[in-house]
Amino acid sequence: MEHARPLPTYLVHRYHGWKATAYTENQAWYRRLANEGQHPRAMVISCCDSRVHVTSIFGADQGEFFIHRNIANLVPPHEPDGNQHGTSAAVEYAVTALKVAHVIVMGHSNCGGVQGCMDMCTGKAPALEEKSSFVGRWMDILRPGYERVKKIENEDKRRHALEKQAVIISLENLMTFPFVAEAVEKGTLTLHGLWHEIGEGGVEQYSPTTGGFTPI
Amino acid sequence: MEHARPLPTYLVHRYHGWKATAYTENQAWYRRLANEGQHPRAMVISCCDSRVHVTSIFGADQGEFFIHRNIANLVPPHEPDGNQHGTSAAVEYAVTALKVAHVIVMGHSNCGGVQGCMDMCTGKAPALEEKSSFVGRWMDILRPGYERVKKIENEDKRRHALEKQAVIISLENLMTFPFVAEAVEKGTLTLHGLWHEIGEGGVEQYSPTTGGFTPI
Amino acid sequence: MEHARPLPTYLVHRYHGWKATAYTENQAWYRRLANEGQHPRAMVISCCDSRVHVTSIFGADQGEFFIHRNIANLVPPHEPDGNQHGTSAAVEYAVTALKVAHVIVMGHSNCGGVQGCMDMCTGKAPALEEKSSFVGRWMDILRPGYERVKKIENEDKRRHALEKQAVIISLENLMTFPFVAEAVEKGTLTLHGLWHEIGEGGVEQYSPTTGGFTPI
Amino acid sequence: MEHARPLPTYLVHRYHGWKATAYTENQAWYRRLANEGQHPRAMVISCCDSRVHVTSIFGADQGEFFIHRNIANLVPPHEPDGNQHGTSAAVEYAVTALKVAHVIVMGHSNCGGVQGCMDMCTGKAPALEEKSSFVGRWMDILRPGYERVKKIENEDKRRHALEKQAVIISLENLMTFPFVAEAVEKGTLTLHGLWHEIGEGGVEQYSPTTGGFTPI
Repeated sequence: MEHARPLPTYLVHRYHGWKATAYTENQAWYRRLANEGQHPRAMVISCCDSRVHVTSIFGADQGEFFIHRNIANLVPPHEPDGNQHGTSAAVEYAVTALKVAHVIVMGHSNCGGVQGCMDMCTGKAPALEEKSSFVGRWMDILRPGYERVKKIENEDKRRHALEKQAVIISLENLMTFPFVAEAVEKGTLTLHGLWHEIGEGGVEQYSPTTGGFTPI
Repeated sequence: MEHARPLPTYLVHRYHGWKATAYTENQAWYRRLANEGQHPRAMVISCCDSRVHVTSIFGADQGEFFIHRNIANLVPPHEPDGNQHGTSAAVEYAVTALKVAHVIVMGHSNCGGVQGCMDMCTGKAPALEEKSSFVGRWMDILRPGYERVKKIENEDKRRHALEKQAVIISLENLMTFPFVAEAVEKGTLTLHGLWHEIGEGGVEQYSPTTGGFTPI
Repeated sequence: MEHARPLPTYLVHRYHGWKATAYTENQAWYRRLANEGQHPRAMVISCCDSRVHVTSIFGADQGEFFIHRNIANLVPPHEPDGNQHGTSAAVEYAVTALKVAHVIVMGHSNCGGVQGCMDMCTGKAPALEEKSSFVGRWMDILRPGYERVKKIENEDKRRHALEKQAVIISLENLMTFPFVAEAVEKGTLTLHGLWHEIGEGGVEQYSPTTGGFTPI
Repeated sequence: MEHARPLPTYLVHRYHGWKATAYTENQAWYRRLANEGQHPRAMVISCCDSRVHVTSIFGADQGEFFIHRNIANLVPPHEPDGNQHGTSAAVEYAVTALKVAHVIVMGHSNCGGVQGCMDMCTGKAPALEEKSSFVGRWMDILRPGYERVKKIENEDKRRHALEKQAVIISLENLMTFPFVAEAVEKGTLTLHGLWHEIGEGGVEQYSPTTGGFTPI
């Protein structure tokens, strides 16, 4: 693999800063985590977006959250076809091997992936409709959500509604995994849906009673 | 979606703590990030493992890293077959839409996914070989890596070597994406391979000159 | 004392969150507690186990419960030999100085200390029998309880019975303290025995009428 | 055990409130804790005082902290004499069985036990000097601390200094336990000393560099 390059110096410097401070202060904990293994309480599925730091928002330290991040925090339906499903593998590992007690799906405002889905569904992004578009095919998971919100006239509201559909559809798809449904029935796993507003720092959660999201 | 439950109270409390402190102190920055969009400098591909916090290790704040996390930080080869490829979608979005300058793949010690791959390749984990095992099919990406390290006798060394193969194979697979190869050729994108030792807090980087990893 | 280290940063952050929220909202109460002293209504003796939060279970706020926590929620018999008895000191302070109206002993399921006692009494844990084993010597307090339950054949039932003996024996030992017996006779103090089932969230209380425990 | 009484009704009501809300919301987590056992990151040694809720201050939920509480948060020196040492048993269990990464000793302002020690050392509390006084004998652990602060003229300052000595002496005594010293040398355990000011909600930590306490 001839193309790898040395890490930018500013990151090397920051690493040494971390090593000399946070690592040194928590050395005992990191060694314990290495020796005794991880026992995270929750799995979090959030977006790759650089503005979404779920560990900061929930004050989580090393060892607390098993975190899968993909475009638009989507979970595809259960499809055991022998192909590679990275998200399904992460869910399977968290629920069956780590036995997490919670799966938290967190969507967010200003999501580029969700915007892309909206553009694609309204015919504004033909490139995303091509077979070779990985982002387009990935965002297909959210297409049924667009059908549910497309009549909302205000564009900002429609986009927020679609960001929230990304959470709801992922929760629905999670329940199609037999090991998820079984753990939920047994009461050893609970599912949670959140939506994070980046600019104002808000967090809303999905309520099955109202079918809507309310601030926590 | 009737199965969603309210967020555990301790997380609600922690969120309000974050809102009252970190958010309030950085409100201007979060609003700027919401209004102006994200412009991350790097994409990081790391593991879902709860012990790996790349933002801590590299002192990254909101807005710096576009982060994809999956089991064992793997990138599959370019396969534009119209199916859903979450990792490929994240790479495509980072390189073609966000135009990040770096893609950093970070593996780590004590990786449960890599251990599973080793068990599978040595016949100790028949359940992982089943078609319906998402973890097993995902770890197939690393099988060629096992072939390269299987002759290492010491088990710890063999596992560390396989964890590093997860990085090298992902870098190799990244170069099979035309838009990645093109950006690398043009000099607008560089690739980096890291391996993080959890207990001792070490970080090593892949060097194409030696073909090995050395501490940064 | 050269070995102390700075508090892990995540705890510092959480503290500032608490200070900005719960403390600020309750400042008047905390100041009143500091200026006027504590007047707790009850003393609780519970286990150090990280899964047992008596303040959560009984919705207790700052100032309500004087809480002593030790391994397996044990009270040794009254032994005024001039040696250091931390539990006896806590009981003495609560009953004679604070004049609490209740002493509540709360045992729990899945107790590691009780399991250790069972292992020790059945010869499976020779290390706990050594003079130098603090856990072993502490669990000696529960040995008479093992004699009462050892004929129960089902292992889960035997362990639960021994966890409950830890409560009963502690209540018996409490009555050997003259100041406890006197306050109970005078009707200014009542004793209560509870057992908490962690997984199902149950609480049972000891009834002197039946000699058994029933759900509250 | 004929003296046990039913739990006061207001606590029964609160328990049912907890069961219907916090327990129900976190059922999956409690079951996981029951089935998989506890893996707390830290042991906390704090005072029985009803005003000191370390779980609130540090936003800790069930499963995070193994908590021992005694009068004045004291650790006696290592004394493997075959007698019952509840505090030493708790430390032994936390460090050798649970392998916690941190032991945090937290003292506090307005501590009645420390006030008693001061009164005893200045001849104002003859009852505490009697052999039969459990509180007096327990507070003997802090006598060497009084010698270090007795020249401070201002009484409030002297008492605060003695409250902090309760932390320092406990840290010193912790290091006399061979299994503590060994884990500290190996870097798998760190010790931390805190002092909490109740009225103002402050937390200070001991710094071995300055020998004093500074706000976190």
